[in-house]
Amino acid sequence: MKLNENYRNLKQNYLFAETAHRTAAYIEAHPDQSVIRLGIGDVTLPLAQSVVRAMQEAAAEMGDAATFRGYGPEQGYGFLREAIRDYYATRGIRIDADEVFITDGAKSDTGNITDLFAKDNVILVPDPVYPVYVDTNTMDGRQIIYADASKENGFLPMPDPQVKADIIYICSPNNPTGAAYTKEQLEAWVAYARENHALLLFDAAYECFVEEGKAARSIFEVEGARECAIEFCSLSKTAGFTGTRCGYTIVPKELCFAGADGEMLSVRQMWLRRQTTKFNGVSYIIQRGAAAVFTEEGMAECRRNIEYYKENAKVIAGTFDRLGVSYFGGIHSPYIWFECPFGMESWEFFDYMLEKIQVVGTPGAGFGANGTHYFRLTSFGSRENTVAAMARFEKMMAEKR
Amino acid sequence: MKLNENYRNLKQNYLFAETAHRTAAYIEAHPDQSVIRLGIGDVTLPLAQSVVRAMQEAAAEMGDAATFRGYGPEQGYGFLREAIRDYYATRGIRIDADEVFITDGAKSDTGNITDLFAKDNVILVPDPVYPVYVDTNTMDGRQIIYADASKENGFLPMPDPQVKADIIYICSPNNPTGAAYTKEQLEAWVAYARENHALLLFDAAYECFVEEGKAARSIFEVEGARECAIEFCSLSKTAGFTGTRCGYTIVPKELCFAGADGEMLSVRQMWLRRQTTKFNGVSYIIQRGAAAVFTEEGMAECRRNIEYYKENAKVIAGTFDRLGVSYFGGIHSPYIWFECPFGMESWEFFDYMLEKIQVVGTPGAGFGANGTHYFRLTSFGSRENTVAAMARFEKMMAEKR
Repeated sequence: MKLNENYRNLKQNYLFAETAHRTAAYIEAHPDQSVIRLGIGDVTLPLAQSVVRAMQEAAAEMGDAATFRGYGPEQGYGFLREAIRDYYATRGIRIDADEVFITDGAKSDTGNITDLFAKDNVILVPDPVYPVYVDTNTMDGRQIIYADASKENGFLPMPDPQVKADIIYICSPNNPTGAAYTKEQLEAWVAYARENHALLLFDAAYECFVEEGKAARSIFEVEGARECAIEFCSLSKTAGFTGTRCGYTIVPKELCFAGADGEMLSVRQMWLRRQTTKFNGVSYIIQRGAAAVFTEEGMAECRRNIEYYKENAKVIAGTFDRLGVSYFGGIHSPYIWFECPFGMESWEFFDYMLEKIQVVGTPGAGFGANGTHYFRLTSFGSRENTVAAMARFEKMMAEKR
Repeated sequence: MKLNENYRNLKQNYLFAETAHRTAAYIEAHPDQSVIRLGIGDVTLPLAQSVVRAMQEAAAEMGDAATFRGYGPEQGYGFLREAIRDYYATRGIRIDADEVFITDGAKSDTGNITDLFAKDNVILVPDPVYPVYVDTNTMDGRQIIYADASKENGFLPMPDPQVKADIIYICSPNNPTGAAYTKEQLEAWVAYARENHALLLFDAAYECFVEEGKAARSIFEVEGARECAIEFCSLSKTAGFTGTRCGYTIVPKELCFAGADGEMLSVRQMWLRRQTTKFNGVSYIIQRGAAAVFTEEGMAECRRNIEYYKENAKVIAGTFDRLGVSYFGGIHSPYIWFECPFGMESWEFFDYMLEKIQVVGTPGAGFGANGTHYFRLTSFGSRENTVAAMARFEKMMAEKR
């Protein structure tokens, strides 16, 4: 038996393990200090009550012979696919319910979608980048090239006509930088993809943080995207589903590429075949909870949570504005990505901040070479902790001067 | 962009679509007839009340800031992995909790595990076979060879030393035939795998139907299996989770194969890397429900449901015994696999039974060439329907004589 040798080319992804390790070591040495964690991109507010109720009712249905449900459709129940179709329609985007695939999360789908691609495609990812895009393609042995994101381009790289890529990952609003493309900027990517017969994989996991009208929330706002793009989204951030697990992927019917013999092949048909073969659908109970998110009551509850996190982001951004720290994100995103002060590298700054003010963030180097001098904070903490962390940060900056 | 051309080699899997289509057409033409469905392998009894309660409580926890949980461990929560470890321990099988991986079902895992294997392995599957083993390897372009299951070997093919395979799928108790290997028979497969440096993929999804001590419930009953086998299991049949979705996969720490340079690589480490990269764990709510299955109360409730299905199987088997119809399964399995009467082929018999007695089953041809003259019935219907179907079957047989 021969194993997949490509796994040996994976880098050990030690980013969060290492930050956790250093934090634990500090706490053990300084048990009296109060450490504030603004590192991990995980939500902290509880689920909406309408979502909890819907799941409890669905669990009760499953315990009653008259309403019990066995195997559901692999693509997801119609009631949820239609709710997502309608969610897009409120933003003026037309998708069909049978273009929506319900899954256990955007991470699974951005990984599993690679099943559909030949091994000899060239993959273009931004640097810095969410590591899953790189790792999943490394597992398959594909060539990966990088689009530099930097202070100069606002961490929003634009297509380079000299670079030929077959599959392009775009995460907007971006993890880790918080930068968000406008519709006009995405038009350039769609034009590039169509000209080069390339595929855009658009990760919209943070769309709910976008300030209305000021950045794009979906690649399908762009004309022509239905011919060249797949969109991944998730309820993790929209509705605090990081531990509840539900996401969705939109594969338009127009999305086709030529096979080796020239026959046009439907990506949606291939994905449907993949999912019916390797997946058995998301739990009925969870799908009922997800559907409650898209009701008027559920949406209002989820909006309140998002506003809470956005207010935290403003606390951080406001502090940085006052201090003159250069940063990205914080507006359309729960992430604030800033240049490490004092010319420090990101791991050096991680240790410095932990030591001086007991605030934990995420070193930018963990997301790629272009993150070496950057640092990520998240707005998913409590208001109290966020305010306290920023007060400490101001003091730290004042003392260094 | 080049798509994965291997998808074009997939056969359209029209088995259940076709049986549904023929059934619907019959009902439309004969609206007055009562059709009994004993075709699909889906459970019908509701979830155990202790499982429902556990999920409702977990949903409430998720709605409370004090007990809310975000991202959980990708491998599954310790409370569930330990419950499964203990479930094996009651049968005298030692596994460690960190060898257990919680997933959304055995179908996902038997598919996703192929990520770990090089493309040039030779795959051995029985014929007839659960189609997922074939389709997932076809998607990757691997060579598939077949082990003939037949009346002569009791639909339990044994290893042939002349045949060299790298990866071997075994489903026992078997879907579709219901045949179950004894521990002694599995010892021969473990010996073959170890001699040939092959991997056994053991699908134990139906283990809960095994009559204690009369067939194997786990490959890990066999000494040496920890060096050559992965086991997949599911709560779909054990606890009626077909629509609730939870399964588990056991990858022993001893399971290693040599890489291209001779270095021994741990399959468990690779699977952990695969799951942490492409999966984000099963919903906390569902994991709490699954843990309730393994409590004393939950087990007692689930056992009652399994006994109900087993009693249905006895109704079918008893009828066939009386009629002298040759069959397999029905003892350690919810499936009864029988030779089509009157020398008919399986699709012909499907139509004949639908027309004469309005009973729907599954034609064996849908599972492989060796099923051409066989037919599958399931014991997942109600007692009333099962008894009625068998009365009609007896009458049909009597009339033909």
